[in-house]
Amino acid sequence: VTSDPLIQENDSVLLYLSPRKNWIVRARASQEFHTHLGRVQLGNLVGLAYGAQVHSTTGEVLWALRPSLYDLIRKSERRTQVLYPKDLGFVAARTGLGPGQIVVEVGTGSGVLTAFAANLVRPTGHVYTFEARPEFAEVARRNLERVGLGEYVTLGVRDAIGGIGVTGADVALLDVGAPWELVPSLGAALKGSGMLAAICPTMNQIERLVESLGAGGFVDVESVELLLRSMEARTGMTRPSTRMHAHTAYLVFARKVLASA
Amino acid sequence: VTSDPLIQENDSVLLYLSPRKNWIVRARASQEFHTHLGRVQLGNLVGLAYGAQVHSTTGEVLWALRPSLYDLIRKSERRTQVLYPKDLGFVAARTGLGPGQIVVEVGTGSGVLTAFAANLVRPTGHVYTFEARPEFAEVARRNLERVGLGEYVTLGVRDAIGGIGVTGADVALLDVGAPWELVPSLGAALKGSGMLAAICPTMNQIERLVESLGAGGFVDVESVELLLRSMEARTGMTRPSTRMHAHTAYLVFARKVLASA
Amino acid sequence: VTSDPLIQENDSVLLYLSPRKNWIVRARASQEFHTHLGRVQLGNLVGLAYGAQVHSTTGEVLWALRPSLYDLIRKSERRTQVLYPKDLGFVAARTGLGPGQIVVEVGTGSGVLTAFAANLVRPTGHVYTFEARPEFAEVARRNLERVGLGEYVTLGVRDAIGGIGVTGADVALLDVGAPWELVPSLGAALKGSGMLAAICPTMNQIERLVESLGAGGFVDVESVELLLRSMEARTGMTRPSTRMHAHTAYLVFARKVLASA
Amino acid sequence: VTSDPLIQENDSVLLYLSPRKNWIVRARASQEFHTHLGRVQLGNLVGLAYGAQVHSTTGEVLWALRPSLYDLIRKSERRTQVLYPKDLGFVAARTGLGPGQIVVEVGTGSGVLTAFAANLVRPTGHVYTFEARPEFAEVARRNLERVGLGEYVTLGVRDAIGGIGVTGADVALLDVGAPWELVPSLGAALKGSGMLAAICPTMNQIERLVESLGAGGFVDVESVELLLRSMEARTGMTRPSTRMHAHTAYLVFARKVLASA
Repeated sequence: VTSDPLIQENDSVLLYLSPRKNWIVRARASQEFHTHLGRVQLGNLVGLAYGAQVHSTTGEVLWALRPSLYDLIRKSERRTQVLYPKDLGFVAARTGLGPGQIVVEVGTGSGVLTAFAANLVRPTGHVYTFEARPEFAEVARRNLERVGLGEYVTLGVRDAIGGIGVTGADVALLDVGAPWELVPSLGAALKGSGMLAAICPTMNQIERLVESLGAGGFVDVESVELLLRSMEARTGMTRPSTRMHAHTAYLVFARKVLASA
Repeated sequence: VTSDPLIQENDSVLLYLSPRKNWIVRARASQEFHTHLGRVQLGNLVGLAYGAQVHSTTGEVLWALRPSLYDLIRKSERRTQVLYPKDLGFVAARTGLGPGQIVVEVGTGSGVLTAFAANLVRPTGHVYTFEARPEFAEVARRNLERVGLGEYVTLGVRDAIGGIGVTGADVALLDVGAPWELVPSLGAALKGSGMLAAICPTMNQIERLVESLGAGGFVDVESVELLLRSMEARTGMTRPSTRMHAHTAYLVFARKVLASA
Repeated sequence: VTSDPLIQENDSVLLYLSPRKNWIVRARASQEFHTHLGRVQLGNLVGLAYGAQVHSTTGEVLWALRPSLYDLIRKSERRTQVLYPKDLGFVAARTGLGPGQIVVEVGTGSGVLTAFAANLVRPTGHVYTFEARPEFAEVARRNLERVGLGEYVTLGVRDAIGGIGVTGADVALLDVGAPWELVPSLGAALKGSGMLAAICPTMNQIERLVESLGAGGFVDVESVELLLRSMEARTGMTRPSTRMHAHTAYLVFARKVLASA
Repeated sequence: VTSDPLIQENDSVLLYLSPRKNWIVRARASQEFHTHLGRVQLGNLVGLAYGAQVHSTTGEVLWALRPSLYDLIRKSERRTQVLYPKDLGFVAARTGLGPGQIVVEVGTGSGVLTAFAANLVRPTGHVYTFEARPEFAEVARRNLERVGLGEYVTLGVRDAIGGIGVTGADVALLDVGAPWELVPSLGAALKGSGMLAAICPTMNQIERLVESLGAGGFVDVESVELLLRSMEARTGMTRPSTRMHAHTAYLVFARKVLASA
C-alpha cells in the first residue's frame, strides 16, 4: 500500500465547499482564509492528507483537495476570455497531443492553452508560444510559473506573422483575432502531416480561416463547436440544468501536407 | 532545420482522400491497397515524408499522413460503442490526466479510453484496467499492442466489483452498465482527492450513480453531456451541418474525500 | 390604402426601448410611467399610430408597439414556470391546433398555454381547462380576461383524474406533475385519432408517461426537447450568444387510437 | 356524447404503422395501397371511425388516422427544403399569428409556411404570397388546394423587390436567398408595429439581413436557431436519440416602426 503524500507547507490546496464555492489557497502557518462562512486556519492544512475535512471557525465543513491542472487554470489571473475544458480537451484529443511533442502556439493570451499543452507534452516535449502584447505575455508567464510548467515553455513576446523560427512542430495552436494571417507562418513551422488547431469565437473567423487553410497547403479541414450541457441528476427528478454557456468558440482543425515534388 | 523522419517499412500511414474516405495502411513493399478510385502501391510509401502526395493507379491524389492516436483509435477493431474525442478529451481535461499518473479503469471495452489515458500518463504513469468479458479483453489487448501502448497498461480479465487490488490511484475511469456497483471498489483504489470519471449512456445510469457517489465518499459530483456540432464554413454560405451525433453518453465526475478521523 | 387603427384610450401598448427593457402599459390620460430613463406621459399615447416614437422626460426615444399575444403572455402575472414560445409554437404545429377545434387541457397553471390555444381555435373552437389549485385557477382566469380570450375558455377548478366530462376533443394538453395519471381521462376525452401533447420538465416524467401512453391506447408516441439558441448577428462578428436557457421542458406527443371492435 | 365523424369516400387518411412508416392515402372504393407488408383495401376505410385499426392482406395492423395539417404538409409535393414544425411553430408563436390577420409572404416555395399561416388566420384573415419562379408557384398552388386552404391565399407569381401592393399587413414572412433585398418592400407592406419573420439557412444571410433591418425602420431585431432533440424514453434506459437534424435555418424577427413625424 502506497501511502498518499500529505499536504506540505506552501502547497496549493483547493478548499472545496460546493461546485460554486471553492478557492485555491496555500498551506501556510499563521495565515487565515476568510469566507462568508467563517475563517480557515491555513497552517492547519499542513500535514493533512489530500481529501481530508477541515472546519471553518463557524463549524462549516470544507474539503482540502489537491487542485487539478484545470482547477489551477480556471483560478488563474487572466486578461482574456477563459478557455473551457471542453475546448482544451477536444483540442488535445483531436490533434493527438502527447508526450514528447513539439508544439507551436500563436496567441498565448493568459497562457491557459499553453499550460494545458505543456502538461501533456512534458517532460520531453516543448511548447513555443508567441504573444505580441507584452502585458498579456507577463500574465501568461506568471500563470505558467505558478502551475509549475514554465520550464516546458518558451514564450516569445512578438508578432509571429512574419515567421516563427521553429520547424518540425507536431502541433500548431492558434488563438488570435485574425487567424488567417498566421497560416503561412504555422505551415512553415509544422512538419509534414502536422496538425493545426485554431480557436475562433466568430463565424466570420472560421469562414476566412478555412479559405486560407485550403489555399495554404492544409487538408482535412474541419470546423466544429462543442456545447456543454450540465445535467441535474436527482432521484426521480433528473433533468438538464436550466442555464448553460451557449457558446465559447468554434474550433478549426487541419493537417499540413507537402507540395508535390 | 530538423529534417522530418521519413516513412519506414511497416509504419502505419493514414491514406487520406477526404474526411469520409481515409484508411490506415502499412507501408509494405509489394502490397497494394484497393480503393474504389484505383490501387495504391504500399511499397511506394516507404521513404516518403509524412504529408506527401501519392497517386492511385487511376491518377487520384491521396495524402500519406501520420496517423494521430485518435486516427488509430477510431480505426480500431471494436466490439463496443465507440468513444468520441469530445468525450475522451473532456475526461482528460476535467480529471487533469497527465504524465506520471496512476489510472484505474473498470470496463476496458475495446480499449479506446485505456489507450487514450495510457498515452497521456506515459512513460512514468500506468493504467490498470479491468474487463470481465474475455472476448472484449482480447480485442482491447490487440488494440493496445497495435497502437504501441501495451507496456503502459495492465489488463485484468475479471470482475472488479469485489475490489481492484490497486491503491493510491490519481484517476478512476468507469464504463460499465451498472456503474453504481463499482463505487466502493473505485473509492478504495483512489487516493484522497482522486478524480472519478464515468461514461453513462442513459439518464437512469447517471441518476443511480450520482446517488451512490454522494453516499459513498465522493464530493464535487457533476454530470454533463457534450454535443459536437460540425460547421460548414464556406465563403458566403457558412452554416452548421445538417446532421449530427445527438448523443453519445453522459459523463459523471466526482472527487474522493476521506472519512473524518 | 388601409389606414392603421390608432392607439385608443385604455389600449395595451408595449413601450419598447430594447430587447430587455420594454413594458406593457395602458394608454390613459393623466397617468405617467416611470422608467430609469425618465417618465412617459401615457395620455400622449392616445391617438398615436402603433409603431410611433414617444419621448421620455429625459429625451429618451421609446417605441409604442402593439403587443403581440406573446408579449401579453410573457408579461402576465404568474405563479408557475413560464412556457416559452418555442414550446408553445411546437405544440401548436405538431398537434395541428387551428380554428374550430375542441381542446381539453389539464393543468391550467397561469393560463399561458390555455391562452395560446384559445387564440388559435377561436372564434368557433373552445378550450376546456382544469386546474385543481384554486389560487392558480384565479390567476389564470385574470390572465385570460386581460388578454381578451376568456369567452373561448371554460375553466374547471378541480382534479381531472377521475374524468373530464368532455368528449370528442381534437387536442389534449397536459401540464401536471404526474402526467401518467391523466392518460385514461384524456384518452376518454379525445376523439379517435386526436392528439395529446404533454409538457414534462424531467426525464422521469417522460419515462413514466410514455409507458402509460403505450399501455393506454395511444400510438405515434414521440418525446422531444427544443433548444433555442440566440445569435448575435453583427457585421464581421457573428456568433451565438454566450448564454442560453438550456432546458425548459420535454414535450411528449401521441395519438389516440380505438380499441378493435 | 358527440359521435365522431366517420371516414368518408375521398377523405385523406394517414395509414400509420410506425413513426417512419406511414402514408397519406385517399379512402376510395376498389383501390388498393401496396406496402412491403401487404396490401390495404382503401375502400374498407370508408365508414370507419378515425383511429380505427385496419389490416393488410398479410395481417399487419395499421391505424387509420386523421392527418393533421402538419402530416399533410410533410407529405406534400415539394421542390424546396422542407420547413420543420419547430420553425413553423416558433414563427407562429413569436409573431402572434392568429385569426383575422393579414399576412404577406415573399418566397412561397412549395407553400408550406403559406399553408401553415393560412390555417391560423382563416377564415377572416388572408395570406398574400409571392413566388418569382413559376414552377414553384405551381407546386405551391397544388399543395394549397390539396390541403383545402387555397381560398385564404392570393399567390402572385412575380418578383416582390419592387413592391408588393399590399399595405397594413400584420405579419411579413420571408424565405428567399437574398432577404435583405426585400426589407423596403416588406417595410412598406407592414402596418406600424407589424412583425417580420425571415428564414435564413446561412450565417451570412442573417448578418446582412440584420444590417438591413436596422437601417430600414425595424426594431427589436432578434436572430435565433432552434434545435430539436428526440428522446428515447424507455423504462430504465431513457436517453437522447443518437441522431438529429443539427440545422435547418436561422430565424430572424423584427418589428416595423414609423419614422418620426
